[in-house]
Amino acid sequence: MIAPTPEPPYYAVIFSSQRTDGDRGYAAMADRMEELARRQPGFLGVESARDAEGFGITVSYWKDEASIAAWKAQAEHAAAQRLGREQWYETFQVRVCRVERAHLMGPREGLR
Amino acid sequence: MIAPTPEPPYYAVIFSSQRTDGDRGYAAMADRMEELARRQPGFLGVESARDAEGFGITVSYWKDEASIAAWKAQAEHAAAQRLGREQWYETFQVRVCRVERAHLMGPREGLR
Repeated sequence: MIAPTPEPPYYAVIFSSQRTDGDRGYAAMADRMEELARRQPGFLGVESARDAEGFGITVSYWKDEASIAAWKAQAEHAAAQRLGREQWYETFQVRVCRVERAHLMGPREGLR
Repeated sequence: MIAPTPEPPYYAVIFSSQRTDGDRGYAAMADRMEELARRQPGFLGVESARDAEGFGITVSYWKDEASIAAWKAQAEHAAAQRLGREQWYETFQVRVCRVERAHLMGPREGLR
């Protein structure tokens, strides 16, 4: 689902990953991390898609870089990051970006 | 597949979209657009994932904002953008960002 976000500037963390085979507790962890992220100060929204081959992109949106640093250091999230490196991801790339501009096309609305 | 990109800074265009039902020529257009984008000056790479419900995220990476503007104006791409608004997408959001920092974890390599 497209995340409703405020007018730029704000920040985005693009997390691109290739999953290993099998669930190994991944789906439950992903739900829990989303629930925790939503409670973090500065969280603006999240979008996620993964294809049938296990390649996925999750983009989380944040008010500023301090909010991103606080989320990265959150204890339960830090533990999930370790498990991610050890068992859930074959490979991943994290990119931290400043969103400069955005346009939305909603259903029947035309481009804004 | 994770796009190999240079050291930041560079730019990213995050395109989040919900497809309409049915192909309607979409898959062929998507392949053609990727082929054209790869020939554009300043193109650095692209990553894409779409789930079984038709929600997808495509992130293309570019050297600078001028490369993004030139790609947006490319004639065949502009025609595809019109068709996208008319028939391929129920809704979409485009966000243009400056990538500030990045880390890669490759297979068996640990975090770089």
